[in-house]
Amino acid sequence: MKVGVFGLGRFGALWAQLLATRATVYGYNRSAGRPVPEGVHAARFEQLGECDALFLCVSISAIEDAAERLCTIVRPGTVVLDTCSVKEYPLAVLRSRLPAEVQLIGTHPMFGPDSSHNGVAGLPLIVCRERAPEAVVRYWIDQFRRLGLNVKEMSAAEHDHEAAYTQGITHFIGRVLRELDVQPSEIATLGYRKILDVVEQTCNDPMQLFLDLQRYNRFTADMRRDLEAAFDRVVARLGQQAGEHIDINRTGNIG
Amino acid sequence: MKVGVFGLGRFGALWAQLLATRATVYGYNRSAGRPVPEGVHAARFEQLGECDALFLCVSISAIEDAAERLCTIVRPGTVVLDTCSVKEYPLAVLRSRLPAEVQLIGTHPMFGPDSSHNGVAGLPLIVCRERAPEAVVRYWIDQFRRLGLNVKEMSAAEHDHEAAYTQGITHFIGRVLRELDVQPSEIATLGYRKILDVVEQTCNDPMQLFLDLQRYNRFTADMRRDLEAAFDRVVARLGQQAGEHIDINRTGNIG
Repeated sequence: MKVGVFGLGRFGALWAQLLATRATVYGYNRSAGRPVPEGVHAARFEQLGECDALFLCVSISAIEDAAERLCTIVRPGTVVLDTCSVKEYPLAVLRSRLPAEVQLIGTHPMFGPDSSHNGVAGLPLIVCRERAPEAVVRYWIDQFRRLGLNVKEMSAAEHDHEAAYTQGITHFIGRVLRELDVQPSEIATLGYRKILDVVEQTCNDPMQLFLDLQRYNRFTADMRRDLEAAFDRVVARLGQQAGEHIDINRTGNIG
Repeated sequence: MKVGVFGLGRFGALWAQLLATRATVYGYNRSAGRPVPEGVHAARFEQLGECDALFLCVSISAIEDAAERLCTIVRPGTVVLDTCSVKEYPLAVLRSRLPAEVQLIGTHPMFGPDSSHNGVAGLPLIVCRERAPEAVVRYWIDQFRRLGLNVKEMSAAEHDHEAAYTQGITHFIGRVLRELDVQPSEIATLGYRKILDVVEQTCNDPMQLFLDLQRYNRFTADMRRDLEAAFDRVVARLGQQAGEHIDINRTGNIG
């Protein structure tokens, strides 16, 4: 079994190294100069075409370019697996751009270098069936489980809805609070320190990932609308008892 | 040294018990039936007037009533210390309602039963000088330090500004997300789990504390406005590249 990894960025390098513990892995990166992780064979782009399975570890917004390039080298029967944090969009692109004889499985390994530095055991990986025989899907689910991952199957739409209201809302709040320039404080409560953790973690990921998560997942627009509506309802609740609004100066002058 | 505690709710009971490790403490609660904590003497309201120092552990919105009742029993030279999570408003009320011969110090012990169940060592307590001789302020700062607390001095305005953008923003986000009905998820990332922690912690406090924090701190209105503006700027950044907006169906039809 020869496995290819297209994209050796922050996540791709981690993923290639992990797969290399169980298979022969060939890694390729568009821009030269990315170090090839230990245990992974450096490949030219054309060599990816010789792989039995091919993982795409490019950014969501680069998936269309990647699909166009792959068309020229991919063989019938090869299984292409994307690893994007959004599922409907990349799978729609791959379905339409790659020949029907190429098999497709969507995956979302829900971790990165930060969250996996103590190992990947128990970390979640989502599988979305797309265009592959049952046996091939079973094979890869089994491989992911052997890596210690917690595999869940769901449809691309289910994934994107759930991700918008969990990962998407977390990243959105992190970016809004970074925009507000929240800072450590000597009077920080425990809750505020957790908020600062969320800001640091989410803003440590590339801005491109944030933009892609918000723009290529059709449910994030609903999420942002719901968040705004909830914000307004909480503010309205404060104002409901506006008659009790406190004017400190007035109060201070009462003798 | 006889110390009185007015209000034996969630925080007052904790505070009375803590003070009782270093002084003779008399506890009083408006509504009967609250258990008096171990080591604390149950007092009638009038007995609070015999105390050398008197801590107010009533909710922010009850401070005006408390001040009116205290007028009838408090003696010249007694030091009254409030413990509200907002400082300008209660100190303005107490300054104007209590006789000039009554000494005043503002405090904000920044913890509660949840955050102190492993002890109070190192937890923050803010002191705001208001109307008391230097020696009396020094005495109380020393007492708080002997309890193991991390004492910081600041003005009431400094406190309220800092609190609005730390504790206030945390509670506001917690309530907005509870309003949105965020739920645990099988695909929860680490960041999302921290967000759920914040929701649980902040919404575990009484709704009255949330309303008081937002309504009796004049800086929280600025905080909410700033938060909304940051929200809008982040949304605008997504829209800036609206030309790249993704229509999944359109993409899916490209052959």
